[in-house]
Amino acid sequence: MFIFTEHELRQHVSLNLEALSVVEDGFTNLAEHRVTMPPIMRVDVHDQNGEVDVKTAYVEGKGMFAIKVSSGFFNNYKIGLPSGSGLMMLISAKTGVPQAILLDNGYLTDIRTAAAGAIAAKYLSRKKIQTVGVIGTGSQARYQAKALRLVRDFQEVLIFGRSEERAKVYAEEMSAELGIEVKVVDSAEAVVRNSDTVITTTPAKDPVIKAEWLHPGIHITAMGSDAEHKQELEAEVLAQAGRLVCDTIAQCERLGELHHAFDQGLLSRKHPIVELGELTSKKAEGRQHEEQITVCDLTGTGVQDTAIALFAFQEMVQRGLGLKIEDKVPAFKN
Amino acid sequence: MFIFTEHELRQHVSLNLEALSVVEDGFTNLAEHRVTMPPIMRVDVHDQNGEVDVKTAYVEGKGMFAIKVSSGFFNNYKIGLPSGSGLMMLISAKTGVPQAILLDNGYLTDIRTAAAGAIAAKYLSRKKIQTVGVIGTGSQARYQAKALRLVRDFQEVLIFGRSEERAKVYAEEMSAELGIEVKVVDSAEAVVRNSDTVITTTPAKDPVIKAEWLHPGIHITAMGSDAEHKQELEAEVLAQAGRLVCDTIAQCERLGELHHAFDQGLLSRKHPIVELGELTSKKAEGRQHEEQITVCDLTGTGVQDTAIALFAFQEMVQRGLGLKIEDKVPAFKN
Repeated sequence: MFIFTEHELRQHVSLNLEALSVVEDGFTNLAEHRVTMPPIMRVDVHDQNGEVDVKTAYVEGKGMFAIKVSSGFFNNYKIGLPSGSGLMMLISAKTGVPQAILLDNGYLTDIRTAAAGAIAAKYLSRKKIQTVGVIGTGSQARYQAKALRLVRDFQEVLIFGRSEERAKVYAEEMSAELGIEVKVVDSAEAVVRNSDTVITTTPAKDPVIKAEWLHPGIHITAMGSDAEHKQELEAEVLAQAGRLVCDTIAQCERLGELHHAFDQGLLSRKHPIVELGELTSKKAEGRQHEEQITVCDLTGTGVQDTAIALFAFQEMVQRGLGLKIEDKVPAFKN
Repeated sequence: MFIFTEHELRQHVSLNLEALSVVEDGFTNLAEHRVTMPPIMRVDVHDQNGEVDVKTAYVEGKGMFAIKVSSGFFNNYKIGLPSGSGLMMLISAKTGVPQAILLDNGYLTDIRTAAAGAIAAKYLSRKKIQTVGVIGTGSQARYQAKALRLVRDFQEVLIFGRSEERAKVYAEEMSAELGIEVKVVDSAEAVVRNSDTVITTTPAKDPVIKAEWLHPGIHITAMGSDAEHKQELEAEVLAQAGRLVCDTIAQCERLGELHHAFDQGLLSRKHPIVELGELTSKKAEGRQHEEQITVCDLTGTGVQDTAIALFAFQEMVQRGLGLKIEDKVPAFKN
């Protein structure tokens, strides 16, 4: 049994092309039916405004699979803590015995979530883009922009958030990080109207993007909604997409943007919707022409967790890192 | 973050009246609607004959709650490993931050499962009993007999298992452990006909107990079935019970004995079924008269896991045990 700390994981597991590639392989496995992925388990801690999700996926042929526990406790800001936390564990797919605990406090989730955004853009965004728009100013707003840089060259970022102050901090940090201009704009509309590719990274309960702002050729990745009551895009945005992609339809129709489009009757279950793994496995094409409007709805899947946890494990073990705990005792004792 | 090993946990957490009492409180909380307990998450690893279950329950007012991962990999015997394994973790119910990992390899599950059996017997078994019957010769067959001793005095155990050799080992070990006679018998029928209280602890897919063997006053606890395809009691056994109890009806009608009784139409959903927490909270009575046949169907619940994990945490921390891992780094880095 190995224990890896957040500190070690941050030092040695980066958001790079290799991380992107393992997550992409995860989606391909999913599309090719080599993954067992049960529905997300969720515990609500109503009296503390908190929730804990458990995700998992077993990929056939892999020696281990991840179980991830991630929490969101939305009163934490009152005591100066981030809302998100959690850990991943790796279980042997041969014996069921736990092999490693990755005390990442959500770091690996940030990486695998940003990777999915970049993968969506790789297949759906126009090849040549100038301006990227980001809505939301939290850590995913940062990771998503950084990940996008791995698959697209762009010269400018437009940032909008409810707090202008946080948007300014974002602009300062990210222009240094990316080495390009990052401009604060004063509305989501200004972001959408002026960007080639837009990423929404908010916990919004009411849509932040209206369909009337869309323009030909735009790509939007909405990664914020992962619960029934969350929504970042007007349902009409999905209806206007010439290419509509989900990480998994099963999850998006319960927890993502798709859910609202179905609920409102703007899309029927017969509407052509593509899963991200169909793009990565080349079963389906991504963007079909320059003027197409494309939308990707991401809810976050267990197969991404297994992919990134296996990648992290390999990175750590080959460096001889991690705390090893040996503890074997007879089965019936006491 | 604390890490506790199986070795430490076995040394300091015992199957005793205190453990029984915390599990009993867990069932009471469940009956009094102070528990959020989502359905069990399950991953099947078909190509390895394995399965992993995740269980959890948040009890209002408790500072932490458990998430438990337990595996059953049924080819493990080929490489000399036990089929079961797993761990528990404790999550803060205030902040969602993981607080402890209990690397118990299923030990705490054994304790809380046996405790539930003893609780069932406490309310359902006749007060004065002479002979206890056990079917199955694995570790739960041992823990259940030991737990029963905490609530009932008995002079003899009858043991039956498919392997006579394993039954003999059981008899030898348990007669030393309990200080009473433990006799190997040659059939499940001999166990049932000659025992006041019977515990079934098998992974049987076909019933091991027939209704025609029942006699007035018998109590049966069936703790083996925890999956759709498992069954230890003929459905008619449940129909003959004057008092039929489940750990939770929601789980038993999916995964327990109850499921088969409903499926076969031997019981309707209007049949009076009591939950164990209704007994512990005194909302309902247990055994109502000496001649009554009583049956308890146990599938194992997340609230037992939270109860035993909190108990174990307290036992360990007050002794200053456990490995403490400190690891705090800024939220956005890299």
